[in-house]
Amino acid sequence: MRIKLNIGLFGFGVVGSGLYNVLNQSKLLDASISAIVVKDPTKKRDAPSSLIHFDKDIILKDSNTNVVVELINDSEAAYEIVKSALASGKHVVTANKKLIAEHFEELITLSRANNVSLLYEAAVGGSIPIIRNLEEYYNNDTLSSVQGIVNGTTNYILTQSNQGVSYEVALKKAQELGFAEAEPTLDVDGFDSKYKLVLLIKHAFGVLSQPDEVYNYGIRHLKPQDVNYALEKGYRIKLFSRAEKLEDGIAGFVAPHFVGPEHSAYRVNDEFNAVIVEALFSDKQLFIGKGAGSYPTASAVLSDISALQFDYRYEYRKSDAEQSGKLISDYYLKVYVGSENEENVKNFPFTEVDEAFKSKGYNYQTGYVKFSDLQRINLNKSADLSLIVLPEPLFSEKSEQGVLLKNKLNFAEIN
Amino acid sequence: MRIKLNIGLFGFGVVGSGLYNVLNQSKLLDASISAIVVKDPTKKRDAPSSLIHFDKDIILKDSNTNVVVELINDSEAAYEIVKSALASGKHVVTANKKLIAEHFEELITLSRANNVSLLYEAAVGGSIPIIRNLEEYYNNDTLSSVQGIVNGTTNYILTQSNQGVSYEVALKKAQELGFAEAEPTLDVDGFDSKYKLVLLIKHAFGVLSQPDEVYNYGIRHLKPQDVNYALEKGYRIKLFSRAEKLEDGIAGFVAPHFVGPEHSAYRVNDEFNAVIVEALFSDKQLFIGKGAGSYPTASAVLSDISALQFDYRYEYRKSDAEQSGKLISDYYLKVYVGSENEENVKNFPFTEVDEAFKSKGYNYQTGYVKFSDLQRINLNKSADLSLIVLPEPLFSEKSEQGVLLKNKLNFAEIN
Repeated sequence: MRIKLNIGLFGFGVVGSGLYNVLNQSKLLDASISAIVVKDPTKKRDAPSSLIHFDKDIILKDSNTNVVVELINDSEAAYEIVKSALASGKHVVTANKKLIAEHFEELITLSRANNVSLLYEAAVGGSIPIIRNLEEYYNNDTLSSVQGIVNGTTNYILTQSNQGVSYEVALKKAQELGFAEAEPTLDVDGFDSKYKLVLLIKHAFGVLSQPDEVYNYGIRHLKPQDVNYALEKGYRIKLFSRAEKLEDGIAGFVAPHFVGPEHSAYRVNDEFNAVIVEALFSDKQLFIGKGAGSYPTASAVLSDISALQFDYRYEYRKSDAEQSGKLISDYYLKVYVGSENEENVKNFPFTEVDEAFKSKGYNYQTGYVKFSDLQRINLNKSADLSLIVLPEPLFSEKSEQGVLLKNKLNFAEIN
Repeated sequence: MRIKLNIGLFGFGVVGSGLYNVLNQSKLLDASISAIVVKDPTKKRDAPSSLIHFDKDIILKDSNTNVVVELINDSEAAYEIVKSALASGKHVVTANKKLIAEHFEELITLSRANNVSLLYEAAVGGSIPIIRNLEEYYNNDTLSSVQGIVNGTTNYILTQSNQGVSYEVALKKAQELGFAEAEPTLDVDGFDSKYKLVLLIKHAFGVLSQPDEVYNYGIRHLKPQDVNYALEKGYRIKLFSRAEKLEDGIAGFVAPHFVGPEHSAYRVNDEFNAVIVEALFSDKQLFIGKGAGSYPTASAVLSDISALQFDYRYEYRKSDAEQSGKLISDYYLKVYVGSENEENVKNFPFTEVDEAFKSKGYNYQTGYVKFSDLQRINLNKSADLSLIVLPEPLFSEKSEQGVLLKNKLNFAEIN
């Protein structure tokens, strides 16, 4: 049975107006936009003026409107709109990852209490249907990891960097192309990637994490020397949002990673996104699609609206299961750490150093670091220190490799 | 609400036994295998002998069994099992594409009449969740094309060919690795790819096609000269199952294609599968995963079982919609045609020739052919003729390009 959708739309930028046109043309979608609420009364808009309003209550207090599509930039205003919509029994479709990540529990509770859907496929991976696949297809306990490039802006900048363009020039290009904001912190320091990771962790492993709990380190401080190291070793640098099931729980963080040519993400360039899902049996599943931009967003919003026709809602099945787990910090990863200042590299809390390189201009070391030690360093604020994760598996203290490393340390301490 | 699943399993090869182990370990899946029916009583099997049976009625007539998982090789026997299971009100999970493609309408009707699910994610694309994504995520009318490499055997052989290995040697290697059958016709002549395409067309565009209606041309007759042409032009050859929405209906066929380095499938090698979905807004979505082999199959079967817990079934929403369309033949494609025999190339029903190359050893032409003209040639039986589709869009007679081509032809005829 199809539900007839009367949509109240907040925001009428490129995404909103594209959506409006498609909904008018679609024969399969029994959905129409009954009101559009925008902020600026002076802008000319490509929709009948009878639909355009400036008071949010035109939508929120209209009992015929059963769906709110929220596509505005201001995430505080969006929060109020979404809360009010859910509370008044309207389904909500949004693309706002910050909003969801910061108010996850409250919004899920609110949507359940009011027996309505809250869908946000557009919030992660642009046009890649990753939330839906985690929710529906990987809803059993065989999933072992979800990771990928989920921020088009930084991937564009890194693609430029990998070709020898400096960070500053690449950022400027990204800003000119509309991929990056004038104030780029959310993207380049990995906050946007982190909000998305919070959503992925919830749907992949049933674990609700606060954005503050999830470590994010971006690409702002990567140096040409780090890119050179990558080139020498045949790597490229990619900013990964990474969540993995280890013995005791879920490891989850955002950081730049070296990837070699055999890695699925090696050739995922520019504004493209890629998500790699690993599950028992299925090996690696790779999803690639356009990440940044209005069209990918509209595409995901459209699929959410389409799903609402059939009363679709996220079930968060893993969250309800007993073994939903928790975020952990007592695991190891292998990293590269570089700095112009030798002391910075020496003082880095390596558990074990593998290689060390010194020169007048630049210094680096590679080796293992315990994640809880890394967590204490605010790398986004450490302009003279670069860290890039090397392509080796994470391992927990309890794993074979973890025990070996520990024994080695104990032995060293005894001697 | 979760449904407790009591599974009757037909077939206990690598897929079946792996599945058995995982189901025993899973905490999230409330499913257990209550009986396993196999053919050969002499084989030793890694399951309690109390579970192993040889009479299919042990499962089919057991009223406690609510799910039948069918993993046997014989598709005629599978047909009888699946029919009987559906008729007696049991859900069915199968990986058998031939079975589904050949009895599609009957099996859908039977499952609906008995109010049970018939799921077959494992039948297409190995571990890639393509059926589910078409069914759920792309269930609106914005989808424009689905195409990809869905046969691991031929992709393995073509990967070898692209590296200069002859077809015969590559086939032998594939057989030794267990990727190809001793009698390889189903794979190398594109039948397997066609059965899968029939499933894709149904879920992508709501069009039910008979396997006989869908043109399939495989890779058996490709010559080293064709591979050389590809090398010279920077192409690789890939066997595509291709379905596209044109003005009047759906174009659907299986044939080798040239792809350039910018194409998403260019680097999809060996036994990997890749499906590319194009939709309004979303641009190209790429799904990559392992195609051939027991583990990918088990992975997809597991997800189907998991979905059954929540009473999931395919809705075939597009089939119910009015504009579900039909398969068409009056469209054009650009192809390369090669042969040692010049006459063969000359007699090929080109509508317009673009390039022609003659030499003592080999001849080829490129140009446009009307699909309905191509359909009349059984290329799988034409050992001395190779055809490979060139990377240009299909276009219908009614498209701008089609009208241009027609006018040019009329002009040529008049003069």
